[in-house]
Amino acid sequence: MHPVENEQLRELEQTLYAEIPLTRYMGVTAAHFDAAGLTLRAPLEPNINHKSTAFGGSLAALATLAGWGLLQLVLRKYPPVTVVIQESSVRYLRPVTEELRATCAMPKTEELERFLHLLARKGMSRIELEVLIPAGGETAVKFRGCFVAFDKHRHHLTLPA
Amino acid sequence: MHPVENEQLRELEQTLYAEIPLTRYMGVTAAHFDAAGLTLRAPLEPNINHKSTAFGGSLAALATLAGWGLLQLVLRKYPPVTVVIQESSVRYLRPVTEELRATCAMPKTEELERFLHLLARKGMSRIELEVLIPAGGETAVKFRGCFVAFDKHRHHLTLPA
Repeated sequence: MHPVENEQLRELEQTLYAEIPLTRYMGVTAAHFDAAGLTLRAPLEPNINHKSTAFGGSLAALATLAGWGLLQLVLRKYPPVTVVIQESSVRYLRPVTEELRATCAMPKTEELERFLHLLARKGMSRIELEVLIPAGGETAVKFRGCFVAFDKHRHHLTLPA
Repeated sequence: MHPVENEQLRELEQTLYAEIPLTRYMGVTAAHFDAAGLTLRAPLEPNINHKSTAFGGSLAALATLAGWGLLQLVLRKYPPVTVVIQESSVRYLRPVTEELRATCAMPKTEELERFLHLLARKGMSRIELEVLIPAGGETAVKFRGCFVAFDKHRHHLTLPA
């Protein structure tokens, strides 16, 4: 991986550990970031359930973090922006019996441009992101999340988590 | 609370801690169970995010556990049944800046009867549950989850988390 991308991933991890302590317990690491998207990983052990597969709550949390993390990286050159999740849906298609890997796809260029344009113009914007978690080479979890970004200097809204 | 209900809650907590270790880190406790539903609690501190409110992933996880836990209690007199989540959707309406409290409503009688009847007849059944998390006296999070229960002696399916 390119050293600059690597540095961005380490910074994202530090942000996660400092601001969302659950990520430390889950063992979340930022594994990969490029024009295709962001991949976060977490070992199975701290995220296991009663069937010795990944706990649904951990899978949903990791997917949420992948979406949130992608926007942190995309928005890093912008004025201070806060990103929160507004809505999400998760389909659990098959059990995950291996390391958890959540990949948030980079939105299409026109979708990203619309999002950034509205953020610059109105100080607030929404975007829908898709996150996939594989298992055994197939898609195990499909997550869709609607995230809201707002410029801290222009909005002091009471927005959700 | 009735001592029997209290004992059921302590047993549920022990099951959660033993089988889903993330619940220990989150500080989940089983607070209340009666004909209206099940309430789980978790302190804000281990579940906090970058805005000093409850992390969306923790809220989704606690809601998932409330649904799963309700079915554990409802099904405790049945032959060994495994419950997994199949699908969920979450709406984050306002931030949670207090202790997290997720209440899974008991399904309507006819809905519950249909679920139990199919489980007995086919060894497998589905049910949709609603979980609410309040904040400041209003609904902060609305969760809907579709859960699948299956008789361990009759099904060895590869079902999700």
